[in-house]
Amino acid sequence: MAISTTDLLAALNFRYATKAFDPARKIPSETWTAIESSLALTPSSFGLQPWKFLVIDSPEIREKLKTASWGQPQVTEASHLVVLTARTDLTQDDIDSWIARLSEVQGTPPEALAGLSGVISSFSATMDAAAKQAWNTRQLYIALGQLMTAAALIGIDTCPLEGISTADYDEILDLKGSGYATAVACVLGYRSADDKYATMPKARFPEEKVISHM
Amino acid sequence: MAISTTDLLAALNFRYATKAFDPARKIPSETWTAIESSLALTPSSFGLQPWKFLVIDSPEIREKLKTASWGQPQVTEASHLVVLTARTDLTQDDIDSWIARLSEVQGTPPEALAGLSGVISSFSATMDAAAKQAWNTRQLYIALGQLMTAAALIGIDTCPLEGISTADYDEILDLKGSGYATAVACVLGYRSADDKYATMPKARFPEEKVISHM
Repeated sequence: MAISTTDLLAALNFRYATKAFDPARKIPSETWTAIESSLALTPSSFGLQPWKFLVIDSPEIREKLKTASWGQPQVTEASHLVVLTARTDLTQDDIDSWIARLSEVQGTPPEALAGLSGVISSFSATMDAAAKQAWNTRQLYIALGQLMTAAALIGIDTCPLEGISTADYDEILDLKGSGYATAVACVLGYRSADDKYATMPKARFPEEKVISHM
Repeated sequence: MAISTTDLLAALNFRYATKAFDPARKIPSETWTAIESSLALTPSSFGLQPWKFLVIDSPEIREKLKTASWGQPQVTEASHLVVLTARTDLTQDDIDSWIARLSEVQGTPPEALAGLSGVISSFSATMDAAAKQAWNTRQLYIALGQLMTAAALIGIDTCPLEGISTADYDEILDLKGSGYATAVACVLGYRSADDKYATMPKARFPEEKVISHM
Protein backbone atom coordinates (compact mmCIF):
# COMPACT_ATOMS: atom_id res chain seq x y z
CA MET A 1 0.00 0.00 0.00
CA ALA A 2 2.77 2.43 0.92
CA ILE A 3 4.29 4.45 -1.91
CA SER A 4 7.97 5.20 -2.41
CA THR A 5 9.55 8.39 -1.14
CA THR A 6 10.36 9.19 -4.78
CA ASP A 7 6.67 9.10 -5.68
CA LEU A 8 5.79 11.13 -2.59
CA LEU A 9 8.25 13.89 -3.43
CA ALA A 10 7.19 13.81 -7.08
CA ALA A 11 3.61 14.49 -5.97
CA LEU A 12 4.66 17.31 -3.64
CA ASN A 13 6.69 18.83 -6.46
CA PHE A 14 3.75 18.40 -8.85
CA ARG A 15 1.65 20.49 -6.50
CA TYR A 16 1.69 24.27 -6.85
CA ALA A 17 -0.82 27.01 -6.18
CA THR A 18 -2.63 26.70 -9.49
CA LYS A 19 -3.77 30.06 -10.79
CA ALA A 20 -5.30 29.09 -14.13
CA PHE A 21 -7.57 26.07 -14.20
CA ASP A 22 -9.05 24.39 -17.27
CA PRO A 23 -12.71 25.36 -16.85
CA ALA A 24 -13.79 22.55 -19.17
CA ARG A 25 -12.29 19.79 -17.06
CA LYS A 26 -14.31 18.51 -14.14
CA ILE A 27 -13.15 16.13 -11.44
CA PRO A 28 -14.98 12.81 -12.05
CA SER A 29 -17.61 12.11 -9.44
CA GLU A 30 -15.93 8.94 -8.07
CA THR A 31 -12.73 10.92 -7.58
CA TRP A 32 -14.62 13.71 -5.90
CA THR A 33 -16.28 11.24 -3.55
CA ALA A 34 -12.82 10.06 -2.49
CA ILE A 35 -11.70 13.64 -1.92
CA GLU A 36 -14.71 14.20 0.35
CA SER A 37 -13.79 11.05 2.25
CA SER A 38 -10.22 12.27 2.62
CA LEU A 39 -11.55 15.55 4.05
CA ALA A 40 -13.72 13.68 6.51
CA LEU A 41 -10.69 11.59 7.55
CA THR A 42 -8.67 14.67 8.54
CA PRO A 43 -7.22 14.29 12.03
CA SER A 44 -8.12 16.89 14.63
CA SER A 45 -7.27 17.56 18.22
CA PHE A 46 -9.13 15.14 20.51
CA GLY A 47 -10.86 13.99 17.32
CA LEU A 48 -13.41 16.79 17.78
CA GLN A 49 -13.66 17.69 14.07
CA PRO A 50 -14.71 21.28 14.80
CA TRP A 51 -15.67 21.91 11.19
CA LYS A 52 -18.03 21.83 8.30
CA PHE A 53 -16.75 21.60 4.75
CA LEU A 54 -19.00 23.38 2.29
CA VAL A 55 -18.76 22.24 -1.31
CA ILE A 56 -20.08 25.06 -3.45
CA ASP A 57 -21.84 23.65 -6.50
CA SER A 58 -23.95 26.71 -7.32
CA PRO A 59 -22.39 28.85 -10.09
CA GLU A 60 -24.25 31.88 -8.70
CA ILE A 61 -22.76 31.49 -5.25
CA ARG A 62 -19.32 30.89 -6.71
CA GLU A 63 -19.63 34.10 -8.69
CA LYS A 64 -20.43 35.98 -5.46
CA LEU A 65 -17.56 34.32 -3.62
CA LYS A 66 -15.19 35.31 -6.43
CA THR A 67 -16.03 38.94 -5.67
CA ALA A 68 -15.19 38.25 -2.02
CA SER A 69 -11.87 36.73 -3.18
CA TRP A 70 -10.35 39.73 -4.91
CA GLY A 71 -11.83 38.51 -8.18
CA GLN A 72 -9.48 35.53 -8.41
CA PRO A 73 -10.64 33.63 -11.52
CA GLN A 74 -9.94 30.19 -10.10
CA VAL A 75 -12.90 30.60 -7.72
CA THR A 76 -15.26 30.08 -10.64
CA GLU A 77 -12.99 28.32 -13.15
CA ALA A 78 -11.75 25.39 -11.07
CA SER A 79 -13.81 22.23 -11.08
CA HIS A 80 -14.65 22.36 -7.36
CA LEU A 81 -14.61 24.89 -4.52
CA VAL A 82 -14.57 23.92 -0.86
CA VAL A 83 -15.04 26.45 1.92
CA LEU A 84 -13.52 25.19 5.16
CA THR A 85 -15.55 26.55 8.06
CA ALA A 86 -14.61 26.35 11.72
CA ARG A 87 -16.91 25.90 14.66
CA THR A 88 -17.04 29.24 16.48
CA ASP A 89 -17.34 27.67 19.92
CA LEU A 90 -16.52 24.57 21.92
CA THR A 91 -19.42 23.73 24.18
CA GLN A 92 -20.23 20.83 26.45
CA ASP A 93 -22.74 19.78 23.79
CA ASP A 94 -19.93 19.62 21.24
CA ILE A 95 -17.93 17.44 23.59
CA ASP A 96 -20.90 15.22 24.47
CA SER A 97 -21.74 14.80 20.82
CA TRP A 98 -18.21 13.63 20.06
CA ILE A 99 -18.09 11.28 23.03
CA ALA A 100 -21.41 9.77 21.95
CA ARG A 101 -20.06 9.20 18.44
CA LEU A 102 -16.84 7.70 19.73
CA SER A 103 -18.81 5.38 21.99
CA GLU A 104 -20.99 4.32 19.06
CA VAL A 105 -18.14 3.68 16.59
CA GLN A 106 -15.77 2.00 19.02
CA GLY A 107 -18.37 0.13 20.99
CA THR A 108 -17.07 1.65 24.22
CA PRO A 109 -19.61 2.47 26.93
CA PRO A 110 -19.91 6.28 27.35
CA GLU A 111 -18.96 5.96 31.04
CA ALA A 112 -15.61 4.47 29.99
CA LEU A 113 -15.01 7.71 28.06
CA ALA A 114 -15.74 9.98 31.03
CA GLY A 115 -12.02 10.57 31.58
CA LEU A 116 -11.49 11.79 28.03
CA SER A 117 -14.62 13.92 28.26
CA GLY A 118 -13.27 15.53 31.44
CA VAL A 119 -9.88 16.24 29.87
CA ILE A 120 -11.52 17.98 26.92
CA SER A 121 -13.85 19.96 29.21
CA SER A 122 -10.94 21.07 31.40
CA PHE A 123 -8.96 22.10 28.32
CA SER A 124 -11.95 23.97 26.93
CA ALA A 125 -12.39 25.81 30.23
CA THR A 126 -8.92 27.37 29.81
CA MET A 127 -10.04 29.21 26.66
CA ASP A 128 -12.26 32.22 26.17
CA ALA A 129 -14.58 32.47 23.15
CA ALA A 130 -11.93 34.02 20.89
CA ALA A 131 -9.33 31.41 21.85
CA LYS A 132 -11.78 28.60 21.13
CA GLN A 133 -12.51 29.91 17.66
CA ALA A 134 -8.77 30.47 17.01
CA TRP A 135 -8.02 26.94 18.13
CA ASN A 136 -10.74 25.48 15.96
CA THR A 137 -9.54 27.58 13.04
CA ARG A 138 -6.03 26.14 13.35
CA GLN A 139 -7.52 22.67 13.03
CA LEU A 140 -8.93 23.70 9.66
CA TYR A 141 -5.38 24.28 8.44
CA ILE A 142 -4.62 20.62 9.15
CA ALA A 143 -7.54 19.85 6.86
CA LEU A 144 -6.20 22.27 4.25
CA GLY A 145 -2.75 20.67 4.40
CA GLN A 146 -4.13 17.17 4.11
CA LEU A 147 -6.49 18.19 1.31
CA MET A 148 -3.77 19.75 -0.86
CA THR A 149 -1.40 16.82 -0.29
CA ALA A 150 -4.06 14.18 -0.86
CA ALA A 151 -5.23 15.89 -4.05
CA ALA A 152 -1.68 16.14 -5.42
CA LEU A 153 -1.18 12.44 -4.84
CA ILE A 154 -4.14 11.55 -7.03
CA GLY A 155 -3.15 14.08 -9.70
CA ILE A 156 -5.59 16.84 -8.81
CA ASP A 157 -4.50 20.48 -8.78
CA THR A 158 -5.43 22.84 -5.98
CA CYS A 159 -5.14 26.45 -4.98
CA PRO A 160 -5.60 27.46 -1.35
CA LEU A 161 -7.59 30.67 -0.95
CA GLU A 162 -6.47 32.54 2.11
CA GLY A 163 -6.70 36.02 0.61
CA ILE A 164 -10.44 36.16 0.89
CA SER A 165 -12.86 38.25 2.88
CA THR A 166 -14.02 35.69 5.39
CA ALA A 167 -16.68 38.14 6.63
CA ASP A 168 -18.09 38.42 3.10
CA TYR A 169 -17.94 34.65 2.69
CA ASP A 170 -19.90 34.24 5.93
CA GLU A 171 -22.49 36.71 4.65
CA ILE A 172 -22.82 35.08 1.22
CA LEU A 173 -22.99 31.58 2.72
CA ASP A 174 -25.47 32.70 5.38
CA LEU A 175 -23.23 31.48 8.18
CA LYS A 176 -24.09 34.21 10.69
CA GLY A 177 -25.59 32.55 13.73
CA SER A 178 -24.85 29.06 12.39
CA GLY A 179 -22.04 28.39 14.86
CA TYR A 180 -19.55 28.12 11.99
CA ALA A 181 -17.38 30.73 10.29
CA THR A 182 -15.20 30.68 7.19
CA ALA A 183 -11.57 29.84 7.98
CA VAL A 184 -10.07 29.33 4.53
CA ALA A 185 -11.07 27.95 1.14
CA CYS A 186 -9.55 25.76 -1.55
CA VAL A 187 -10.31 25.18 -5.21
CA LEU A 188 -9.57 21.88 -6.92
CA GLY A 189 -9.45 20.82 -10.54
CA TYR A 190 -6.97 20.60 -13.39
CA ARG A 191 -4.37 23.17 -14.39
CA SER A 192 -4.85 24.99 -17.65
CA ALA A 193 -2.24 24.15 -20.29
CA ASP A 194 -1.24 27.80 -20.35
CA ASP A 195 -0.81 28.46 -16.61
CA LYS A 196 2.60 30.06 -16.60
CA TYR A 197 3.04 29.22 -12.91
CA ALA A 198 2.97 25.48 -13.70
CA THR A 199 6.45 25.49 -15.20
CA MET A 200 8.16 27.90 -12.83
CA PRO A 201 10.82 26.31 -10.62
CA LYS A 202 9.42 25.58 -7.17
CA ALA A 203 10.70 28.23 -4.80
CA ARG A 204 11.54 27.32 -1.23
CA PHE A 205 14.23 28.45 1.15
CA PRO A 206 17.17 26.04 1.27
CA GLU A 207 16.36 23.17 3.65
CA GLU A 208 19.20 24.16 6.00
CA LYS A 209 17.44 27.48 6.59
CA VAL A 210 14.18 25.89 7.73
CA ILE A 211 15.28 22.59 9.26
CA SER A 212 17.68 22.30 12.18
CA HIS A 213 18.80 19.39 14.29
CA MET A 214 19.43 19.63 17.97
CA MET B 1 3.03 9.09 -10.73
CA ALA B 2 -0.46 9.62 -9.32
CA ILE B 3 -1.83 6.96 -7.02
CA SER B 4 -5.35 5.57 -6.99
CA THR B 5 -8.04 6.96 -4.72
CA THR B 6 -8.21 3.50 -3.15
CA ASP B 7 -4.55 3.69 -2.16
CA LEU B 8 -4.99 7.25 -0.90
CA LEU B 9 -7.90 6.31 1.34
CA ALA B 10 -6.08 3.19 2.53
CA ALA B 11 -3.18 5.40 3.65
CA LEU B 12 -5.50 7.86 5.41
CA ASN B 13 -7.21 4.96 7.15
CA PHE B 14 -3.81 3.48 8.06
CA ARG B 15 -2.97 6.71 9.85
CA TYR B 16 -4.04 7.17 13.45
CA ALA B 17 -2.61 9.07 16.40
CA THR B 18 -0.11 6.43 17.42
CA LYS B 19 0.26 6.24 21.18
CA ALA B 20 2.72 3.34 21.54
CA PHE B 21 5.72 3.32 19.24
CA ASP B 22 8.25 0.54 18.83
CA PRO B 23 11.29 2.17 20.45
CA ALA B 24 13.64 -0.26 18.70
CA ARG B 25 12.56 0.69 15.20
CA LYS B 26 14.17 3.75 13.66
CA ILE B 27 13.17 5.44 10.43
CA PRO B 28 15.96 4.74 7.91
CA SER B 29 18.03 7.79 7.11
CA GLU B 30 17.08 7.94 3.40
CA THR B 31 13.43 7.87 4.39
CA TRP B 32 14.00 10.57 6.98
CA THR B 33 15.74 12.74 4.39
CA ALA B 34 12.62 12.48 2.22
CA ILE B 35 10.42 13.45 5.17
CA GLU B 36 12.55 16.54 5.74
CA SER B 37 12.18 17.40 2.07
CA SER B 38 8.43 16.97 2.31
CA LEU B 39 8.39 19.35 5.28
CA ALA B 40 10.40 21.91 3.34
CA LEU B 41 7.94 21.58 0.42
CA THR B 42 4.96 22.55 2.59
CA PRO B 43 2.94 25.32 0.94
CA SER B 44 2.44 28.55 2.86
CA SER B 45 0.65 31.81 2.32
CA PHE B 46 2.57 33.99 -0.16
CA GLY B 47 5.25 31.27 0.02
CA LEU B 48 6.71 32.99 3.08
CA GLN B 49 7.51 29.78 5.01
CA PRO B 50 7.27 31.50 8.41
CA TRP B 51 8.79 28.55 10.18
CA LYS B 52 11.67 26.50 11.44
CA PHE B 53 11.33 22.76 11.92
CA LEU B 54 13.46 21.47 14.77
CA VAL B 55 14.38 17.81 14.64
CA ILE B 56 15.26 16.76 18.16
CA ASP B 57 17.98 14.13 18.06
CA SER B 58 19.24 14.59 21.63
CA PRO B 59 17.79 12.01 24.05
CA GLU B 60 18.36 14.47 26.91
CA ILE B 61 16.30 17.19 25.25
CA ARG B 62 13.60 14.69 24.32
CA GLU B 63 13.40 13.60 27.94
CA LYS B 64 12.88 17.23 29.00
CA LEU B 65 10.29 17.77 26.28
CA LYS B 66 8.43 14.68 27.46
CA THR B 67 7.98 16.38 30.83
CA ALA B 68 6.58 19.40 28.98
CA SER B 69 4.18 17.05 27.14
CA TRP B 70 2.29 15.61 30.11
CA GLY B 71 4.75 12.74 30.15
CA GLN B 72 3.47 11.24 26.92
CA PRO B 73 5.79 8.27 26.26
CA GLN B 74 5.81 8.67 22.48
CA VAL B 75 7.92 11.84 22.88
CA THR B 76 10.93 9.67 23.73
CA GLU B 77 9.88 6.32 22.26
CA ALA B 78 9.11 7.30 18.69
CA SER B 79 11.95 7.24 16.19
CA HIS B 80 11.86 10.99 15.48
CA LEU B 81 10.46 14.14 17.04
CA VAL B 82 9.88 17.38 15.13
CA VAL B 83 8.97 20.63 16.83
CA LEU B 84 7.20 22.97 14.43
CA THR B 85 8.04 26.54 15.36
CA ALA B 86 6.41 29.64 13.95
CA ARG B 87 8.02 32.97 13.24
CA THR B 88 6.77 35.39 15.90
CA ASP B 89 6.75 38.38 13.56
CA LEU B 90 6.42 39.37 9.91
CA THR B 91 8.87 42.14 9.16
CA GLN B 92 9.95 43.91 6.01
CA ASP B 93 13.18 41.92 6.31
CA ASP B 94 11.19 38.69 6.23
CA ILE B 95 9.42 39.87 3.10
CA ASP B 96 12.64 41.07 1.45
CA SER B 97 14.36 37.82 2.24
CA TRP B 98 11.57 35.85 0.58
CA ILE B 99 11.47 38.12 -2.47
CA ALA B 100 15.25 37.74 -2.84
CA ARG B 101 14.95 33.96 -2.72
CA LEU B 102 12.07 33.94 -5.20
CA SER B 103 14.07 36.13 -7.54
CA GLU B 104 17.05 33.80 -7.26
CA VAL B 105 15.13 30.54 -7.80
CA GLN B 106 12.87 31.78 -10.56
CA GLY B 107 15.40 33.99 -12.28
CA THR B 108 13.03 36.94 -12.03
CA PRO B 109 14.58 40.39 -11.46
CA PRO B 110 13.65 41.65 -7.94
CA GLU B 111 12.03 44.77 -9.46
CA ALA B 112 9.58 42.51 -11.31
CA LEU B 113 8.51 41.20 -7.88
CA ALA B 114 7.88 44.66 -6.40
CA GLY B 115 4.12 44.22 -6.87
CA LEU B 116 4.08 41.00 -4.84
CA SER B 117 6.31 42.56 -2.21
CA GLY B 118 3.88 45.48 -1.89
CA VAL B 119 0.88 43.17 -1.54
CA ILE B 120 2.56 41.25 1.27
CA SER B 121 3.63 44.47 3.01
CA SER B 122 0.12 45.90 2.80
CA PHE B 123 -1.31 42.66 4.16
CA SER B 124 1.24 42.60 6.96
CA ALA B 125 0.36 46.19 7.88
CA THR B 126 -3.22 45.12 8.65
CA MET B 127 -2.01 42.88 11.49
CA ASP B 128 -0.70 43.67 14.95
CA ALA B 129 2.05 41.57 16.52
CA ALA B 130 -0.35 39.01 18.02
CA ALA B 131 -2.22 38.64 14.73
CA LYS B 132 1.03 38.08 12.85
CA GLN B 133 2.09 35.31 15.18
CA ALA B 134 -1.38 33.74 15.05
CA TRP B 135 -1.33 33.86 11.25
CA ASN B 136 2.12 32.30 11.11
CA THR B 137 1.04 29.66 13.61
CA ARG B 138 -1.88 28.65 11.39
CA GLN B 139 0.59 28.05 8.56
CA LEU B 140 2.35 25.52 10.77
CA TYR B 141 -0.83 23.48 10.86
CA ILE B 142 -0.67 23.19 7.08
CA ALA B 143 2.79 21.72 7.63
CA LEU B 144 1.43 19.39 10.30
CA GLY B 145 -1.36 18.22 8.00
CA GLN B 146 0.99 17.62 5.11
CA LEU B 147 3.53 15.89 7.37
CA MET B 148 1.04 13.40 8.81
CA THR B 149 -0.46 12.65 5.39
CA ALA B 150 2.92 12.33 3.67
CA ALA B 151 4.22 10.03 6.39
CA ALA B 152 1.15 7.79 6.22
CA LEU B 153 1.62 7.42 2.48
CA ILE B 154 5.11 6.05 2.92
CA GLY B 155 4.06 3.78 5.79
CA ILE B 156 5.34 5.89 8.67
CA ASP B 157 3.26 6.36 11.81
CA THR B 158 2.82 9.73 13.48
CA CYS B 159 1.29 11.31 16.52
CA PRO B 160 0.62 15.05 16.57
CA LEU B 161 1.45 16.65 19.90
CA GLU B 162 -0.82 19.57 20.56
CA GLY B 163 -1.27 18.97 24.28
CA ILE B 164 2.12 20.33 25.17
CA SER B 165 3.31 23.31 27.14
CA THR B 166 4.58 25.49 24.30
CA ALA B 167 6.07 27.90 26.85
CA ASP B 168 8.09 25.07 28.38
CA TYR B 169 9.12 23.86 24.93
CA ASP B 170 10.35 27.39 24.11
CA GLU B 171 12.33 27.43 27.34
CA ILE B 172 13.87 23.99 26.84
CA LEU B 173 14.72 24.72 23.21
CA ASP B 174 16.10 28.14 24.08
CA LEU B 175 13.76 29.87 21.66
CA LYS B 176 13.19 33.02 23.72
CA GLY B 177 14.38 35.96 21.66
CA SER B 178 15.02 33.79 18.61
CA GLY B 179 12.05 35.13 16.67
CA TYR B 180 10.44 31.69 16.65
CA ALA B 181 8.05 30.00 19.06
CA THR B 182 6.72 26.47 19.38
CA ALA B 183 3.42 25.98 17.58
CA VAL B 184 2.94 22.23 17.72
CA ALA B 185 5.03 19.05 17.56
CA CYS B 186 4.84 15.66 15.93
CA VAL B 187 6.52 12.34 16.53
CA LEU B 188 7.17 9.83 13.77
CA GLY B 189 8.17 6.19 13.75
CA TYR B 190 6.55 2.78 13.76
CA ARG B 191 3.63 1.63 15.86
CA SER B 192 4.26 -0.91 18.54
CA ALA B 193 2.66 -4.32 17.92
CA ASP B 194 0.69 -3.88 21.13
CA ASP B 195 -0.73 -0.39 20.60
CA LYS B 196 -4.38 -1.03 21.35
CA TYR B 197 -5.36 2.13 19.45
CA ALA B 198 -4.03 0.64 16.20
CA THR B 199 -6.93 -1.77 15.84
CA MET B 200 -9.77 0.45 17.06
CA PRO B 201 -12.27 1.42 14.39
CA LYS B 202 -11.53 4.89 13.04
CA ALA B 203 -14.02 7.29 14.58
CA ARG B 204 -15.33 10.19 12.56
CA PHE B 205 -18.69 11.87 12.38
CA PRO B 206 -20.75 10.64 9.43
CA GLU B 207 -19.70 12.50 6.28
CA GLU B 208 -23.14 14.08 5.92
CA LYS B 209 -22.61 15.85 9.24
CA VAL B 210 -19.35 17.52 8.18
CA ILE B 211 -19.77 17.94 4.43
CA SER B 212 -22.58 19.93 2.85
CA HIS B 213 -23.26 20.97 -0.72
CA MET B 214 -24.75 24.29 -1.65
